[in-house]
Amino acid sequence: MRVKLLSHTNDPEKIVAAAARCCYSNDDPDNLLESLTDDRVEKFLSKLVEMKHESPFEHASFTFSISGVSRALLAQITRHRVASFSVRSQRYCEFKDADFVLPDSISRDPRASEIYLESLKNLKSTYDSLLEFGIPKEDSRMILPNAAETSMVLTMNARELLHFFSLRCCSRAQWEIRAVANEMLKLVKNVAPNLFRRAGANCIRLGYCPEGKMSCGKFPTLEQILNDFNERKSNQ
Amino acid sequence: MRVKLLSHTNDPEKIVAAAARCCYSNDDPDNLLESLTDDRVEKFLSKLVEMKHESPFEHASFTFSISGVSRALLAQITRHRVASFSVRSQRYCEFKDADFVLPDSISRDPRASEIYLESLKNLKSTYDSLLEFGIPKEDSRMILPNAAETSMVLTMNARELLHFFSLRCCSRAQWEIRAVANEMLKLVKNVAPNLFRRAGANCIRLGYCPEGKMSCGKFPTLEQILNDFNERKSNQ
Amino acid sequence: MRVKLLSHTNDPEKIVAAAARCCYSNDDPDNLLESLTDDRVEKFLSKLVEMKHESPFEHASFTFSISGVSRALLAQITRHRVASFSVRSQRYCEFKDADFVLPDSISRDPRASEIYLESLKNLKSTYDSLLEFGIPKEDSRMILPNAAETSMVLTMNARELLHFFSLRCCSRAQWEIRAVANEMLKLVKNVAPNLFRRAGANCIRLGYCPEGKMSCGKFPTLEQILNDFNERKSNQ
Amino acid sequence: MRVKLLSHTNDPEKIVAAAARCCYSNDDPDNLLESLTDDRVEKFLSKLVEMKHESPFEHASFTFSISGVSRALLAQITRHRVASFSVRSQRYCEFKDADFVLPDSISRDPRASEIYLESLKNLKSTYDSLLEFGIPKEDSRMILPNAAETSMVLTMNARELLHFFSLRCCSRAQWEIRAVANEMLKLVKNVAPNLFRRAGANCIRLGYCPEGKMSCGKFPTLEQILNDFNERKSNQ
Repeated sequence: MRVKLLSHTNDPEKIVAAAARCCYSNDDPDNLLESLTDDRVEKFLSKLVEMKHESPFEHASFTFSISGVSRALLAQITRHRVASFSVRSQRYCEFKDADFVLPDSISRDPRASEIYLESLKNLKSTYDSLLEFGIPKEDSRMILPNAAETSMVLTMNARELLHFFSLRCCSRAQWEIRAVANEMLKLVKNVAPNLFRRAGANCIRLGYCPEGKMSCGKFPTLEQILNDFNERKSNQ
Repeated sequence: MRVKLLSHTNDPEKIVAAAARCCYSNDDPDNLLESLTDDRVEKFLSKLVEMKHESPFEHASFTFSISGVSRALLAQITRHRVASFSVRSQRYCEFKDADFVLPDSISRDPRASEIYLESLKNLKSTYDSLLEFGIPKEDSRMILPNAAETSMVLTMNARELLHFFSLRCCSRAQWEIRAVANEMLKLVKNVAPNLFRRAGANCIRLGYCPEGKMSCGKFPTLEQILNDFNERKSNQ
Repeated sequence: MRVKLLSHTNDPEKIVAAAARCCYSNDDPDNLLESLTDDRVEKFLSKLVEMKHESPFEHASFTFSISGVSRALLAQITRHRVASFSVRSQRYCEFKDADFVLPDSISRDPRASEIYLESLKNLKSTYDSLLEFGIPKEDSRMILPNAAETSMVLTMNARELLHFFSLRCCSRAQWEIRAVANEMLKLVKNVAPNLFRRAGANCIRLGYCPEGKMSCGKFPTLEQILNDFNERKSNQ
Repeated sequence: MRVKLLSHTNDPEKIVAAAARCCYSNDDPDNLLESLTDDRVEKFLSKLVEMKHESPFEHASFTFSISGVSRALLAQITRHRVASFSVRSQRYCEFKDADFVLPDSISRDPRASEIYLESLKNLKSTYDSLLEFGIPKEDSRMILPNAAETSMVLTMNARELLHFFSLRCCSRAQWEIRAVANEMLKLVKNVAPNLFRRAGANCIRLGYCPEGKMSCGKFPTLEQILNDFNERKSNQ
């Protein structure tokens, strides 16, 4: 798995801060932008986060290269609809390099690894034979597994990224998309630390876990803190 | 492949016609709706199509059950973002029935069929063994191929359906999604013939083919008709 | 202000329940739909709400007629982007009936009412004169105020409605959009009580108020319950 | 009316080209990006436009400051849903400077100008009085006209911009949004000439006018070129 930040909106933090100020000011946005010092940007953004005024975060976009990931990950990540994807096509690209994802749960188990790798080899050879027999790539690929590696260019704006991280950095997310999300978070924090200061799984943002019975236990669930609050109140 | 229409907006044609009339009338939409006879709905919708006033088509939604389709189709269809999907999960559902899609190009070729079916049997048995070894479903599925069948509930509004059909009923679309699109078109035409009168591949809607060099040749390309027009004009 | 439910997806609750079950079942969605009794639908939907599995709610759409509302409301409501709108056009429809919205805060104050109504009369007469002078409708309307009434057809799916209600039924929302939202909520509860059982302002759904310092005080804020929880914990 | 380009994705053309190549290559997107020379970017982008492969254009975003525009323009532009807006709020900002848009059609007509400007003065004074009487800003603004100036920060990606220009640079679009669209087009052409080479009204992009009977006549309509083609063909 390789995740890189290819590009992003210039001056992302300043742009978001200027956009947010535009809502509450009679000044023109370009003047607001010019008048913003780094210090004021930081203060302004932390206030935005506190007030949950998220829409200005949409003005900053981030574009990633993601490669060496499974088609299973692809199926999950493309379900995020407020995002732009360009994905290597199995209809147009021959699957040549036989790169497959190997989950830890399988690599740790020698018996499992053996049949898994054997099976992958077998189906890659079937894929190659199908192509040789003249079967089109778009049909030959039917034999390719979820484990087959792919790569993509992905663009999301900062607001959608906050949402994406809240779901996909959670320990309930699948390991592969969680690893990708954590890498993405690291990369955007480098270039826009104030935009993503409280970014992460829902528990990081909310202070409690919204997953109910499925909670990992690191944070109290909403039910727990509400019950506690109500109990205490009725005892007073 | 099985496609069924599960539900749709009540009175889809009347609703779209009333919404369109609302743009040009001082009357309330509910009054406009009541005053619409079937005959006027039909005339109104054909005028809308002619004027390319498409936004009112968004008010009518259609919900489909699609099953017996490959995960390759899933990867394509979920790229349509103005749509709602509920998809059988390979993380939660064990892949039991070994239902795999068999492309015509493979079934027509005995050698190809043999290795394809053999390979599918092999990887299904690997999948079963991985589960037996205690590998979680979400990792065991890594060995499952694009051919593995899945099912989903899909909802699109009529405007997005028109767009979907324009791309996916085209002979350049992949055979599986084209077959699904054609089924969907048949089903919605039954319940809303006036909404979908000129629905279909781009050529059906436009009268020319926008695919340039990749055109199937059934319709003249845009380049052809434009060149022809300009040539004739310069000859006058 | 008049709000009516014009149409909606047939069998909205059953459709949502079948879509949700599809994610966890090897059965086809159309079979799942058939096998659902009303009783099981109800149980299933309350489980979905509890699990915060919201995406299946997208399969049920609801279409409203909204009229007698101000252009100020229009500016707010059209900012919801996961929605479809058909709106009476001031470019095409002459503003004839001089229907204007009168806010309570103004109607309660005789001095304010007097100048407000006088001003409205004045600008309506300016509008009529501009038209007489041959100024196009699209430019004459420049003099029309936010108070000018309009009407629209609006379609949202149940998931977006839940989100819409969480923001717009809140006491911090403006009075006019709050009134519209409350009417819409009443109407959808009539036809789909299980889908919208816990619908309403954020506090109704969450059990706490996420508005921080701007809270109306009816529910404890997140900060309050978290502080309380942490304090109690550190005391143990 | 003032339109400025505040920011955009770094290296927009290279990013789009790399994303497009990713679909057809086994190489990683970050490698593809590095290997792109300016010359190849240009060739690649013109091929994309020709092939109508538009989705990679989504990876480049552009953020504008738009000010000195009417609330009528706001109502139109915010109907584009694949876009991000931060708009000066009439609920929170007092309308102080009495800046109003003056359409040419009115400024050219002395009688119209007189009553228009008089009416604007009158309603601004009503607005001020309402505030003095203690009416909240959100209700006092009900008297403010469509002509009242506002400002906003707007972000759209290049694909949506192409769509926006195709509709709003057309002579059928209203003069104010057409002026804004033309300014935006000029600005993005400066920084990404290859992305926006054939951008503009639909006729510029298609070579014909899709507006049917409403056509301005600069380009032949689709009906004309199709009729011509079919006639000629039947004559052969």
